[in-house]
Amino acid sequence: MEVLRIGVIGTGAIGKEHITRITNKLFGGQVVAVTDVNEAAAQEAAKICGARVEQDADAIINAPDVDAIMVTSAGFAHAESVIKAVQAGKPVFCEKPLATTAADCKKIVDLEVAGGKQLVQVGFMRRYDKGYLQVKEALDSGQFGEPLLVHCAHRNATVPESYDTPMAVHDTMIHEIDVLRWLINDDYVTAQVILGKDTKHTHGKLRDPQIMILRTKSGMTIDVEVFVNCQYGYDIECEVICEEGIVRMAEPSFPTIRHAKHHAIYIEQDWKKRFPDAFDVEIQEWMDTTKEGKVRGPNAWDGYIAAVTADALVKSQETGAIEPIVTGERPAFYN
Amino acid sequence: MEVLRIGVIGTGAIGKEHITRITNKLFGGQVVAVTDVNEAAAQEAAKICGARVEQDADAIINAPDVDAIMVTSAGFAHAESVIKAVQAGKPVFCEKPLATTAADCKKIVDLEVAGGKQLVQVGFMRRYDKGYLQVKEALDSGQFGEPLLVHCAHRNATVPESYDTPMAVHDTMIHEIDVLRWLINDDYVTAQVILGKDTKHTHGKLRDPQIMILRTKSGMTIDVEVFVNCQYGYDIECEVICEEGIVRMAEPSFPTIRHAKHHAIYIEQDWKKRFPDAFDVEIQEWMDTTKEGKVRGPNAWDGYIAAVTADALVKSQETGAIEPIVTGERPAFYN
Amino acid sequence: MEVLRIGVIGTGAIGKEHITRITNKLFGGQVVAVTDVNEAAAQEAAKICGARVEQDADAIINAPDVDAIMVTSAGFAHAESVIKAVQAGKPVFCEKPLATTAADCKKIVDLEVAGGKQLVQVGFMRRYDKGYLQVKEALDSGQFGEPLLVHCAHRNATVPESYDTPMAVHDTMIHEIDVLRWLINDDYVTAQVILGKDTKHTHGKLRDPQIMILRTKSGMTIDVEVFVNCQYGYDIECEVICEEGIVRMAEPSFPTIRHAKHHAIYIEQDWKKRFPDAFDVEIQEWMDTTKEGKVRGPNAWDGYIAAVTADALVKSQETGAIEPIVTGERPAFYN
Amino acid sequence: MEVLRIGVIGTGAIGKEHITRITNKLFGGQVVAVTDVNEAAAQEAAKICGARVEQDADAIINAPDVDAIMVTSAGFAHAESVIKAVQAGKPVFCEKPLATTAADCKKIVDLEVAGGKQLVQVGFMRRYDKGYLQVKEALDSGQFGEPLLVHCAHRNATVPESYDTPMAVHDTMIHEIDVLRWLINDDYVTAQVILGKDTKHTHGKLRDPQIMILRTKSGMTIDVEVFVNCQYGYDIECEVICEEGIVRMAEPSFPTIRHAKHHAIYIEQDWKKRFPDAFDVEIQEWMDTTKEGKVRGPNAWDGYIAAVTADALVKSQETGAIEPIVTGERPAFYN
Repeated sequence: MEVLRIGVIGTGAIGKEHITRITNKLFGGQVVAVTDVNEAAAQEAAKICGARVEQDADAIINAPDVDAIMVTSAGFAHAESVIKAVQAGKPVFCEKPLATTAADCKKIVDLEVAGGKQLVQVGFMRRYDKGYLQVKEALDSGQFGEPLLVHCAHRNATVPESYDTPMAVHDTMIHEIDVLRWLINDDYVTAQVILGKDTKHTHGKLRDPQIMILRTKSGMTIDVEVFVNCQYGYDIECEVICEEGIVRMAEPSFPTIRHAKHHAIYIEQDWKKRFPDAFDVEIQEWMDTTKEGKVRGPNAWDGYIAAVTADALVKSQETGAIEPIVTGERPAFYN
Repeated sequence: MEVLRIGVIGTGAIGKEHITRITNKLFGGQVVAVTDVNEAAAQEAAKICGARVEQDADAIINAPDVDAIMVTSAGFAHAESVIKAVQAGKPVFCEKPLATTAADCKKIVDLEVAGGKQLVQVGFMRRYDKGYLQVKEALDSGQFGEPLLVHCAHRNATVPESYDTPMAVHDTMIHEIDVLRWLINDDYVTAQVILGKDTKHTHGKLRDPQIMILRTKSGMTIDVEVFVNCQYGYDIECEVICEEGIVRMAEPSFPTIRHAKHHAIYIEQDWKKRFPDAFDVEIQEWMDTTKEGKVRGPNAWDGYIAAVTADALVKSQETGAIEPIVTGERPAFYN
Repeated sequence: MEVLRIGVIGTGAIGKEHITRITNKLFGGQVVAVTDVNEAAAQEAAKICGARVEQDADAIINAPDVDAIMVTSAGFAHAESVIKAVQAGKPVFCEKPLATTAADCKKIVDLEVAGGKQLVQVGFMRRYDKGYLQVKEALDSGQFGEPLLVHCAHRNATVPESYDTPMAVHDTMIHEIDVLRWLINDDYVTAQVILGKDTKHTHGKLRDPQIMILRTKSGMTIDVEVFVNCQYGYDIECEVICEEGIVRMAEPSFPTIRHAKHHAIYIEQDWKKRFPDAFDVEIQEWMDTTKEGKVRGPNAWDGYIAAVTADALVKSQETGAIEPIVTGERPAFYN
Repeated sequence: MEVLRIGVIGTGAIGKEHITRITNKLFGGQVVAVTDVNEAAAQEAAKICGARVEQDADAIINAPDVDAIMVTSAGFAHAESVIKAVQAGKPVFCEKPLATTAADCKKIVDLEVAGGKQLVQVGFMRRYDKGYLQVKEALDSGQFGEPLLVHCAHRNATVPESYDTPMAVHDTMIHEIDVLRWLINDDYVTAQVILGKDTKHTHGKLRDPQIMILRTKSGMTIDVEVFVNCQYGYDIECEVICEEGIVRMAEPSFPTIRHAKHHAIYIEQDWKKRFPDAFDVEIQEWMDTTKEGKVRGPNAWDGYIAAVTADALVKSQETGAIEPIVTGERPAFYN
């Protein structure tokens, strides 16, 4: 198989971005068929890449000339498409979340394990960001000893009024949930959310900021400040405290300006620009490994873990208590 | 009163430092009498300042030519001297802790309130450090809105084997307990300590690192990483998250070196050098305000709050639970 | 013309890199023919891109299926190929230098002007680096007023013994010569080199470090420290002093490490990694604009200016005096 | 001699500051007599320290109860007082400049040498600044090899209209002239000033900014940007390029603020606050060493060197040429 022929289910913003990326920037893949509940959107997306428009997801999944599926529909529709793709034995890249319930994620995991072949990759792209990769490289060098603690911050300048308290987990913290497990190579056992004094810039349905705390099997403590109306910019921090040193992720690179009584460095405002190359690296790797019949990126189990962890955090938002994260043992299949 | 005549109870390391400071660096004070359980130490200290040696604390407190008392004896002995000084109606500067139990602190508070005049200052010197003062100035400017969260770290390169788990509260976190209340002008309501994966560099009696979390009346969350075998240096961090911006305390000032594949800045190793001028400013202010018959620094109530908060943190070290901090209402006397 | 068919003259290191780039990373170009004085090298390069090997530069230039020429041969051979390409009316990308003498550069300029169409682009890739582009964007915003001074440094960890004093101009400073003119949109009028105390790490034929000073028509002063045995890394600095502020180019992005008594950030060691995306952006833009029949990058006049400026700097290395840079007026053709 | 009895000639701004410092902050000195051409000013200054007012400089110098002289009059009057003090065999601290002409400086040097005893200290206080001392300590450690180059900047937000082009040397660069010789332990041989494009914020009599270049005996090159209408703040930079590393002086310590799309650090605006402790350390050391009959700070020869160097820089402001700095050999007396 020289060119990976891809069928895309869902041609909204992120779907169109991936189609453009595959068509104009990356190598070895071609989008041959697209579908969307909004047919006009599908037509428009089809023009970008010269693909045909199919009636529905089933048509994409079953098309003989579609080697691999990309699921970029609305979140609630992910599970159905992924399940069908797995049943059809086709590799599938599913944007996060894998499914909107842990139960559906588990169903996908079980199906995949039963099928005996990893097919599913989940779109957690931070694992492909240079900043995190540099931190991971430093940790993995062993030069600083074992990691013991992680301090993070995830800040947005503002969020719309539709963004509510649980979305601080599902839409925001979800990135840290996945990338931190990968970074420190550990699993979560408890979740705790501390709500408190709200910023005056928040809305009626949103407690903001929040402190989220995850504990791991090895005993590590991870604290993440989620603050989505911080006003000043889009700001992602990650610092790992190790036995013999601390590794702090680089900030985005901008000139230092000496002006108006200060020296200052710009903070990125647009989250789309914060991890500029990560999507490219992610999709390129997915296409390459898919051709080899492998999944190297975040897999179905990772998608399931994220869902279970998010549930525990949301529960703690309500109870204020330290909630257990119970996932069962990871099937050897995913080792 | 032109020169404040001071009697010093306890001439160990910190006692001698204060005597030297008053004698050779500061203005308007004179140490006229000293005492110590170790008479030789008292004699040596007396030579620094040309003072006489008294038999015991009582003799110091009751000496007619002693205007003010400085208590720098061992911690367990503080309460008795402070109580007697208050009973004698004399101003007293007591190195931290005010007393080793919250009950004794409360006794001092009650005595002072009954006496109708503030006499006691406690030696929490961080309030006098330029770094914290700069942060406080920024917060008090109102430019960044209300403070919502505080992230801190208190790291030592190493501690001796005698340092055990509760000392992470009593000897280390105690500084943050006092300075953070002052910084954000709020009171604590709960305490939580998270123990977890220990560094291999710790000793049998010490869980290290620890995350300590304090909640305040207004709903602020404060997290402090206490890590006393971090190997790389003595490192104090403090960052306040406000509604419209973040204020992060300056690090100590050293040249930037480009050398050996890195650009690097030295981290202070010696805690005695970390807050170089704070002790001078503290003691000078104490002498000045004492002459005016006032207490402007940390007072007996602050000493009591620190003790109650420390007890709650130590309890949480044992229970792992979120422990209440119950202090009763602050007497109007201290407003 | 949908795909730009490129013939490559010279398949050494940089030639092969560009071939690989065009073949595997960029869009819209295809290397169809290659040649090299070393035929084995040409064969190897041909395999990367599936091109044919031609006998010599003439065959490449005259091949009917070659739309554009890339000259990546040894520097002394550049002029001849570029001249022939221009005479053949074909667009040509020539790695720096355009020619090894100002006279040859001028010949190319004159030929191009006579032909009435810009065809030549010179491989000064720093104009495509994100760091410089950010500085230029800040300057062009007008927010900081007019630029008045530029301070730069160009440092290599070490250079081989074959690197001699004039190479500090021809191989090193040459990058600043081009990028700074572009950055501040001005022309040079004098050159001065200050030699002085040599590092013990230099070799017999090399004075190191050197300070190079360029003055511009508008009166700006540019100082560049060229230090090619600085031992600690590959380090490029650029700071523009403006009427109301200073813009300093960002350093490469690496984590901050707190370890061993310092907090430290890695300095890039490998010059090939310092401007990672600039080559891609450069060659992609060249291919795109070539298809439009335009030259947007550094042109023949820029190549000529660089040569004249380099000559003046080398002369000043010998005389120690402030040497004039005389280029004649820029033909309107290049406006 | 237990207390050094000091007579002060000149009670303007800096004179009063030193009097206050000696009286309220430092140890072992007492101002016993003051004089000023403005008698009211002298009376006011006398009140600070409880000194008597003398008729004129002669009365101060000859007073039997005056052990040491402090000259803080207007610059043109320095030489006469210093000469008389030396003739009277009394130690004298003279604010910069030692004299307004190199000839007068030389006269003082000759007189002092003839007298056989060092008596004169010049008020170059940067040698006492913690920032420079840290750089010197790093250089003197030998860890980074020999210093080869120095890059500096001296920037003021604005200067008044009375400030003209030569004052960029006499009032501004004069600090670098002295402190850099001390820092790198070398002597100057040539001076060059580059004038160019002026900021629109300058005035009719002032070329601003200027680049000043000093070469040393050992071959080091020092470049100093003098920019006194930079608008954004008072900013002093110093960076020493060594054989194996670079040492860059620390910037003043302020919190990092994340706010309004940037993270920013305040730049000091008030030059009086830039070197806060240097004056104290300087005057304390002067008093201490004077009691020992020594001069450890900048001496008459240093004052002379500064004057000769300044003259060469001013000449280069006019000629644009590289001007020699001819001082004659340093008398062994000053080794």
